[in-house]
Formats: sequence, C-alpha cells, structure tokens
Amino acid sequence: MRTDGLSINLATVRQQWNLVEAVEACARHGIKAVDPWRDQVAAVGLDVAVRAIKDNGMQVSGYCRGGMFPAADAAGRQAAIDDNKRAIDEAAALGAQCLVLVVGGLPAGSRDIGAARRMVADGLAAVLPHARASKMPLAIEPLHPMYAGDRACVNTLKQALDLAETLGDDVGVAIDTYHVWWDPELEAQIARAGRARRIFGYHICDWLVPTKDLLLDRGMMGDGVIDFQRVRGWIEQAGYTGLTEVEIFSAANWWTKPGDEVLRTVIERYNATL
Amino acid sequence: MRTDGLSINLATVRQQWNLVEAVEACARHGIKAVDPWRDQVAAVGLDVAVRAIKDNGMQVSGYCRGGMFPAADAAGRQAAIDDNKRAIDEAAALGAQCLVLVVGGLPAGSRDIGAARRMVADGLAAVLPHARASKMPLAIEPLHPMYAGDRACVNTLKQALDLAETLGDDVGVAIDTYHVWWDPELEAQIARAGRARRIFGYHICDWLVPTKDLLLDRGMMGDGVIDFQRVRGWIEQAGYTGLTEVEIFSAANWWTKPGDEVLRTVIERYNATL
Repeated sequence: MRTDGLSINLATVRQQWNLVEAVEACARHGIKAVDPWRDQVAAVGLDVAVRAIKDNGMQVSGYCRGGMFPAADAAGRQAAIDDNKRAIDEAAALGAQCLVLVVGGLPAGSRDIGAARRMVADGLAAVLPHARASKMPLAIEPLHPMYAGDRACVNTLKQALDLAETLGDDVGVAIDTYHVWWDPELEAQIARAGRARRIFGYHICDWLVPTKDLLLDRGMMGDGVIDFQRVRGWIEQAGYTGLTEVEIFSAANWWTKPGDEVLRTVIERYNATL
Repeated sequence: MRTDGLSINLATVRQQWNLVEAVEACARHGIKAVDPWRDQVAAVGLDVAVRAIKDNGMQVSGYCRGGMFPAADAAGRQAAIDDNKRAIDEAAALGAQCLVLVVGGLPAGSRDIGAARRMVADGLAAVLPHARASKMPLAIEPLHPMYAGDRACVNTLKQALDLAETLGDDVGVAIDTYHVWWDPELEAQIARAGRARRIFGYHICDWLVPTKDLLLDRGMMGDGVIDFQRVRGWIEQAGYTGLTEVEIFSAANWWTKPGDEVLRTVIERYNATL
C-alpha cells in the first residue's frame, strides 16, 4: 500500500512512544514524514529530536504548535509572543515545513471573543518578522467552534484566510477535516485558499457519531461521517500537492492500542481515502 | 425582579416536572411564557396541555420541535414531512408563536452532508404550504457545528437565513446564543435577520468552559463565557421585540436541582443580562 504523501502527526501515537520511538516506527512502516509536538520534542531534547528525524530521512510536515496568543494582561501576551519565537526556532531546527498555530481562546475571566480575536491578530503580527527571518511559514489552524472558548477563537477557514490576508505573505492555513468538515462554505474557502497559495497543511481525522468527548474522541478515517474523497478532491483542485497528515486524539480507542497496529490502520485508511 | 419578556423552554425543567406542573410553577414565579416540547405535550395529552397553558395565561414563544427531515429513503423523508405537519397542528392548537425546527443531521450510513442539506430544503418546502395555511411561522434553529452529524446540518445563522430566503415569507430563524456565540459573522447576520424580519425566536443559554458533554452540559447565563449583553444589544438593534427564551439542558447540574430553585435562578440571571 502507498505511504507516499502520508505524514503522521505524532500526537496520534503519543501514548505509545516517545518521539524517537515514534519516528523509528514510522520509518519501519515506510512512512516518510511526521509532525511532532513541542512537548514530545522537549521530552527527548531538541538535538535528539533533530537527529532522529534526519537519521530516519523524515520530512516534517509541520510543527505543533505555536499560537495561544490571548492573555489577560500585556505581560501574558508578551510571554506568548516570546514563546512563539522559540517555537519558530525549534521548527526551523527540525526543518518543519510550517509552524502550526492553535491561536488560543478567551483569556481567563473574559467573555470578549472579539478582543481575543484582536489579540490573536496582534500576536501574529508581532511574531511574523521573526518567522520571516527564519523562513518559517505560519499555518493558522481554524479549530472547530466547540473550542472557541478555551483553545482557538479562529473557527472557520474563511476567518483564518481573512486573518492571513491582513498579515500578508508567509501566513497561511492548516486545514484539518475534523475542524472544518461541517462548514457550508468549505468548498468555496478551500478554493480561495488554493488561489491565494495559502494551504500550508492538510490534516485528516474523522468525526465520530456519537462523539463522546470534546477533545479526545476523534476518529480514524472511515469510522465517522466525513467524506474524505470529496474534501481531498477540493484540496487537489485547489492545487495543493503537499503532505497529508493524520492527526487523531483518541484516549479511549487508538491511544490504547499498540502503536504498530495504529500505524498499519492509518496506512490502510489513508489508501482508502485516496 | 422583572419577568416580562421572559419565556421558559420547558426542557429546562423537564426532569423536575411534567408540562402541567411546569406551567403552574412558571405562573407561580410570575413567568408568562413557555416553550413546550412535543414529548412533554404527548405525556399529558394535547388537550390538557392547551388547557394548562390557557388557564395560566401563558404565551407560547415557540413549540419544540419540528425538523429532522433527512432520511435514508423516500419513505423516511415522507414520514418526516407528515410528522412535521402534525407538529404544525399541535403548535397551532397551543397558540405557539412559531414551530422551532431542528433540521436533522446525516441519515444513517451517509457521509453526504450536502445531500442532507438538500433534503432539509426539500422537506421545508414540502411542509411550508401547511404551515402557511395554519398561520404557523417556521423558525429554523441553526445548531452548533458539533451537531452537524446527528442533529442539524444547518450550523450557522448565515446558512439558516440563506435557506429561509430561498423559501420566502413565513420562514425565519430561532437564534440560540449557545449555538451561535462563537460565529465571527454573528453581529452581521443578526442585523441581516432583523432587516429581513426573520428573527422568530431568541434563546439564551451559556457555553461552559470546560463543556463536559456535547448535549447535556449547557450553562445558566453567567456561568460560562457568552457576553449576553452584547448579543442582546445586537438583537435589539435588529428590531427584535419578542420574548427571550431560556433553554438549558443540564443533566449533571440544573436538572438535579429543585425546579423552583432553577426558576428563581433563571429570573435572577435573566435580569442580570438585561
């Protein structure tokens, strides 16, 4: 079965393996790209992570994650900006194709989502010069509206693209089917993103019915209700030729299974969506 | 404290009282409007429900609910249309100001949300003549995108208004803060709905952080992150002068408390949002 074009977001096997073990497992399965998380890199050390990725000939489809810009006070917002600059440096060291941004939700105690959105725009503008100097594209990931309060107040592809356009080049989007599949404007906005050459990442993950947990009950492709072939068609039509990254948070199911079984299943289902 | 303009969606006290008890309790608390659910009406019988509402001088801000149009086959879709006509008749008997529509999600086994959306439009068109003959306005309630798979494939106010416009007069929207608070286009779409005189209902319910259950962990106003005064301002600016309906599904919290305590709290929080 094909593994070309496939990338594994290492959150998918975060309970089974550390970063080095996960990278080696991907290599064993013929997978040639990964997207690691910052805590996974920190757990083994950046140098060890870089070496594991280089030694195994892995591409890095993205680095998870920057963002989390809103904060209750200016010091908190500056700390977020500084932390994003460090994330950019790590992403560059890893050779990542982009830094994935989960922009953040409402600051504690706030009910002002408009203000949070302005903090996101300001934070992005503040880190963009460093990203450009580091030649690190920033990929805004619109998250499902159910995360608007606590994780990301950018909740549609249209909103992410509007934001990217105000910032200029080197800012694009990571499109994750889990977050955007429901959007009545999805086809039109994917086409728009393609015309603007702003699709920096494409992630796949299924929406289960029922979904039993807001964060950790995401589905393997084919187990839910998303029409991957249709969305893939729109993505290809939009001119995206990059990697397809599988990212599944699944506390009660996939995180409990042997990592090799998860990777085998990912490869099977990836082929079924092609 | 004020109770004028306040309506209680009877799902809010569905575990405490049957319809007659709930209506009498609302009257005791000085509340002059309710929105009953079909199963609550069926449990006591339509005639008994009508009498309880009339005897207590209640307005009926809406009737929950019609919709659920998509089905795997034509017979299922026709059954849904027939059932919606019965719902319209019941709503008319109750003197409801509108029939609230939760339009339905994907039919079992389907991954085609576009097809489901077309079934919704077709179903609405099929019941509209009966609604008009019964002088019963139809209020499409856009549901939060996390229900797109199983409950409602109309997920934004814009989408609901686009649909209403294709159908013509007598079709509008029920705007529930819980479902739409996250939408970056909310202010603009409320204004649009007002210009088109299509706001048939305004429901309030808070979004809790964290939300522990996708269906039954909704919050009392003030306990979550929604800025009710801001949204109320937009609603008033849009010219809406109708009732404000409190609708809270809360299995682990409010449904476990004495109904009188729930109603007292609703009245306090309603006043705080004015």
